[in-house]
Amino acid sequence: MNQSRLDRVIGYMLQTQMEQLIISDPATIFYLTGEWIHPGERMLVLYLNLGGEKHLFINALFPVQLQEADGVQAHYFSDTEDSISLLSEFISDEGDIGVDKTWPARFLLPLMEKLPHATFINGSLAADSVRLIKDLDEQAAMRKASELNDQAMKFLAASVEDECTELSLSRLLKKTYRIMGTDGVSFSPIIAFGANAALPHHDPGNSQLQPGDSIICDIGCIKDSYCSDMTRTFFYKTISDKARRVYDLVHQANLAAIAAVRPGARFCDVDAAARQVIEAGGYGPYFTHRTGHAIGIEVHEFGDVSSVNTALLEPGMVFSIEPGIYLQNEFGVRIEDLVLVTETGCEVLNQFSKALTIIG
Amino acid sequence: MNQSRLDRVIGYMLQTQMEQLIISDPATIFYLTGEWIHPGERMLVLYLNLGGEKHLFINALFPVQLQEADGVQAHYFSDTEDSISLLSEFISDEGDIGVDKTWPARFLLPLMEKLPHATFINGSLAADSVRLIKDLDEQAAMRKASELNDQAMKFLAASVEDECTELSLSRLLKKTYRIMGTDGVSFSPIIAFGANAALPHHDPGNSQLQPGDSIICDIGCIKDSYCSDMTRTFFYKTISDKARRVYDLVHQANLAAIAAVRPGARFCDVDAAARQVIEAGGYGPYFTHRTGHAIGIEVHEFGDVSSVNTALLEPGMVFSIEPGIYLQNEFGVRIEDLVLVTETGCEVLNQFSKALTIIG
Repeated sequence: MNQSRLDRVIGYMLQTQMEQLIISDPATIFYLTGEWIHPGERMLVLYLNLGGEKHLFINALFPVQLQEADGVQAHYFSDTEDSISLLSEFISDEGDIGVDKTWPARFLLPLMEKLPHATFINGSLAADSVRLIKDLDEQAAMRKASELNDQAMKFLAASVEDECTELSLSRLLKKTYRIMGTDGVSFSPIIAFGANAALPHHDPGNSQLQPGDSIICDIGCIKDSYCSDMTRTFFYKTISDKARRVYDLVHQANLAAIAAVRPGARFCDVDAAARQVIEAGGYGPYFTHRTGHAIGIEVHEFGDVSSVNTALLEPGMVFSIEPGIYLQNEFGVRIEDLVLVTETGCEVLNQFSKALTIIG
Repeated sequence: MNQSRLDRVIGYMLQTQMEQLIISDPATIFYLTGEWIHPGERMLVLYLNLGGEKHLFINALFPVQLQEADGVQAHYFSDTEDSISLLSEFISDEGDIGVDKTWPARFLLPLMEKLPHATFINGSLAADSVRLIKDLDEQAAMRKASELNDQAMKFLAASVEDECTELSLSRLLKKTYRIMGTDGVSFSPIIAFGANAALPHHDPGNSQLQPGDSIICDIGCIKDSYCSDMTRTFFYKTISDKARRVYDLVHQANLAAIAAVRPGARFCDVDAAARQVIEAGGYGPYFTHRTGHAIGIEVHEFGDVSSVNTALLEPGMVFSIEPGIYLQNEFGVRIEDLVLVTETGCEVLNQFSKALTIIG
């Protein structure tokens, strides 16, 4: 059990008068206990309350090492036991019960039936708002993961050649991550050529490179349980004037957003900084997504860099800055870095060049 | 839209007087529409009601091709729009609303707040009970996936040698699946040597083979969106009398369970058939999990082969039969096949030999 992280979660519960909390997210349980448990469709719950109780409810298929000093009581159940009944015996039928935002209906609905007087609320902020601020160990891990990601991007860019397809580059990248000693990808790589690059979530396919294509490489690896995530857009052999202008706008938007990051600024200010550049350039409608997302143990964590998030930035937050312009049936450009909020501004975790690069 | 599948879902809703249904499971949406959408943390809902309405609520990042003839109305929203408000406008605040078992609390709780008079129930059976019975197209796809899995197991067994580790075999297997033209693994391969094989969900590591080790290979691939899943246990160079006896028991348990599969038998009868063999052999407490699980588009689907599932088997069901014995700090044995319930008994989808095999 990481006591200082747990104390911060309990602090949030106290502040918001959330008497009980059901944590089910394996990433949060790892964050607090150091144990990675992947229960699939089986129930996994770390229950906390303001009376100081800590219970872990877990299928007997997943034995865990808990230190007695941590004061967490483990309750094992088998595949044929009713885990919700077991859990409900430890929960008080009064006051607010926070549950994780990802807790599925198959657990939540029967628990509601067993505790008809309780009020269930989305309690994820108790852990998510703590996870949003990375401690020094986490900052070091995230720097390392992004450093490896920079190296992988360098190798990937050097591997672009006539014969390659999106899929062949994607496979090469996965192999590279393995050889580099990472724990694998933080998400399935998005490698998109030409018109495919106009689809922000394109799955790599068998498209081959054509001169003038933009090449979006949105890639990330995991190292020591922390994620990296970076996008660069290259061009193949030649570039049109239009594409050059679009690239320049996205690049300027990326820089403007980074310049807006400092403690006390709002997430939406960072989004606006990027969006204003693209809107002023006449491409506003083609920047179709938020500017970024928080990242850590998971590649998408609580904390949107979007126009509706008015929360204030604090030192220790890590999120992506990834403006893009997507022109249907033509091409797309996205440039993404991870930034760590510091006392005075931010540290950009990616060093890979953002200068316009024409390959081949 | 696959009309006959949709009709069966609607039929279930009629029968159970479930007036409205919120389907969020991407696998069920694929099953019904043929569209694979992976929305991550974003909301995705296919809404059906007994009045014949069909609405798809989807983030604009994931454009879909819907045929007008299907009568499904698509409603797109952006990252900054309140998708729950949009959804709630189309839902009636009366009667039972079925929701998918996996629908997360972050959507369910705010929708409950917007519709205070509605009763939310776990409505997954509407689709899950239909998906449990595979139609002929699905049966063909599952035969094909298991045929490829048989071939991969053959190659894997032939690749066991002095120097290999669990991880090296796992990587070799993934490469084999790729070369064979599968869509990838249906789950992260479980390759476990010796004492690691006593942990049913062991993650492959750097353990090296020792003479006498059992080698559990629990592997599966996806082909044309359908999953395979098979386990074989080999021994390395030599085998103790105890391990030979345990292997024989598990093998007999696997055969006994398969012999119990026929329409009208109960899932729990199949579980009991395997369990009785192992209990009679004195190893009952070491068979620590259910005998199997349904499988199809997902590797674990609704339909447990366990002592508490009294549902009747029907032709078209596909599930695993995977008894095992796990001796802590010693070794483990598991033997798993997929079976398809036929009119008179079952078809075993795996052909790979279950005879005791000592490698090397």
